[in-house]
Amino acid sequence: MTPPDLRATFRRGELVRPTAGMAPGFVQANLVILPRELAFDFLVFTQRNPKPCPLLEVVEAGSAEPRLMAPGADLRTDLPRYRVYRDGTLVDEPTDLTPLWTNDLVSFLIGCSFTFESALVEAGLPVRHVEQCTNVPMFITSIPTVPAGAFHGPMVVSMRPIPAGQVVRAVQVTSRFPAVHGAPIHIGDPAAIGIRDIAKPDLGDPVEIRAGEVPVFWACGVTPQAVAMASKPRLMLTHAPGHMFITDRRDAEFAVL
Amino acid sequence: MTPPDLRATFRRGELVRPTAGMAPGFVQANLVILPRELAFDFLVFTQRNPKPCPLLEVVEAGSAEPRLMAPGADLRTDLPRYRVYRDGTLVDEPTDLTPLWTNDLVSFLIGCSFTFESALVEAGLPVRHVEQCTNVPMFITSIPTVPAGAFHGPMVVSMRPIPAGQVVRAVQVTSRFPAVHGAPIHIGDPAAIGIRDIAKPDLGDPVEIRAGEVPVFWACGVTPQAVAMASKPRLMLTHAPGHMFITDRRDAEFAVL
Repeated sequence: MTPPDLRATFRRGELVRPTAGMAPGFVQANLVILPRELAFDFLVFTQRNPKPCPLLEVVEAGSAEPRLMAPGADLRTDLPRYRVYRDGTLVDEPTDLTPLWTNDLVSFLIGCSFTFESALVEAGLPVRHVEQCTNVPMFITSIPTVPAGAFHGPMVVSMRPIPAGQVVRAVQVTSRFPAVHGAPIHIGDPAAIGIRDIAKPDLGDPVEIRAGEVPVFWACGVTPQAVAMASKPRLMLTHAPGHMFITDRRDAEFAVL
Repeated sequence: MTPPDLRATFRRGELVRPTAGMAPGFVQANLVILPRELAFDFLVFTQRNPKPCPLLEVVEAGSAEPRLMAPGADLRTDLPRYRVYRDGTLVDEPTDLTPLWTNDLVSFLIGCSFTFESALVEAGLPVRHVEQCTNVPMFITSIPTVPAGAFHGPMVVSMRPIPAGQVVRAVQVTSRFPAVHGAPIHIGDPAAIGIRDIAKPDLGDPVEIRAGEVPVFWACGVTPQAVAMASKPRLMLTHAPGHMFITDRRDAEFAVL
C-alpha cells in the first residue's frame, strides 16, 4: 500500500498497529501537537535537541494539514493511534483527535528512525523488531535533554541488536540520515545510559538479542512524551509510540551524501 | 588570535572588517535579532529554509549570551559591525547594539559558509575572496524562500569561483557541513538564478573569475536581511554582511561523516 492508502486505512479505523515496516522507502514521522503559547518554547527545544527531535515540519496554528510532508493529509485522523497528555499525565489513547481539536493548536512532525530501517535492510543488517513483527523497544534513559523554556526531561532511545561485526556499518548507514535521528547515540552497555533491564523496554516490545549481537541505541522521537511527563504542559497530543505518521516523502530525499 | 581574543578586539572597537579567514577552524555565524512576538514565525522560517538559515542557536529572550556556541560572549558588542532594519529599511550600521537593546529581543545564530572555507583550503581548493583579502561576493537571487508567518522573500547566495575540475570536490567537501549551508545551491550560469551581472554583487565585494573557473553558489545567511526588506518586520537587528560572530565551537564538531 502507498502512504496515502495507508493513511486512508488508518483514517477509517481499519488498522490499528505499529507502522514499522510499512511503506518501505517513505519517511515516517513522530507527531507532537501543542497549544500556541507553548509552541515557541518547544520549537527552541527541538533546535537544541536535534538528535531526538529532528524537525521535519511545523504546521500553521489551527491547520492539521502537513503541506510539505504530505499535502492533503489530516494529522487528526491519519495515524493509527494517538496519545493525550494533560499536565504530564497520559489520559487517553484515541484513534481520532478530531473531538479534541482547537484552532490554537500547532503541530510538529519529527523524524522517526523507522525511516532508515529500509537502508539498514538494504545494507544487509538485521532489523529485529521488523523480523519479529513487533514494535521497536524504547527506553527512557538517564541522558538529559537540553532544556528550553518550559521543556526539560530525559532522552528516549530506540534499540536494535546488531551483530558486532556490523556495528560500524550501522553507524555509517544511519549517519546519512540526520533528519531521522542519524547516527546512534550509544553502542553497547545499557547501564551506561541508565537502562536497568534491556529485556524490559519502557515502551514498545522486547526483542531477542542473539549471541554476538550488540545493543545499539538511537535517539527516539518519543522523547517529547517523556519530556511532557517531566515538564507537565497543560496539553500535549502525540502519536502512540510506534504508531507513526507515514509521509509522502522518500527517505532518499533526506539522505546526506 | 583565538575566538575570545577576536571578540574582545571587536568589543573594544579596535577592528572593523569582514571576518573571512579569521580564526580558521572555528564556526562563524550570522546574527538575527527580533522582537519576541516575531520570534516564533522566524523560527518556523528557519526550519522551512535550512539551506540559507541553518540554525545554530536560539538565545532566551532578553539574553545576549549564546551559551551553547560561545559562553560568556555578548552578542550586542562582540561582532565587528551590525545592521539595523526598521520596517524593512536599513537605517543604521552601528558597531555596538547596546543602546538598542530591550528585554523582549530574541537572538538567532545561523551558520555561515566561512566555516567550511578552511575545509575547502585543506582540500586544495581556492577561496578567492580570502586570497584577495576582500569580503565574499553575495547576490540576491530569484529563488524564493519558503514563507512562514510574517516572513517571505528571496534567497541570498555567496559565490566562490572554483576550477571546473574541482567542482565535484567542492560539492563533496561542503556537503559534510549542512549546519553551515552545506552543499551548493547552484553551479554555473548566474542568470539561471536571477543574477544579472556576476561582476556586481549586491553585497560584499567582486572577486576575479579566472579562465576555466565556474561560479559556484551557496545559500547565504544574509538571506534574513533580504527577507526583512521584503516582509518589513518592525525591527530586525543583524550582523553587517561578512562581519560575522566568531564562536568557540570547532568546524569539525558540525561535520557529518
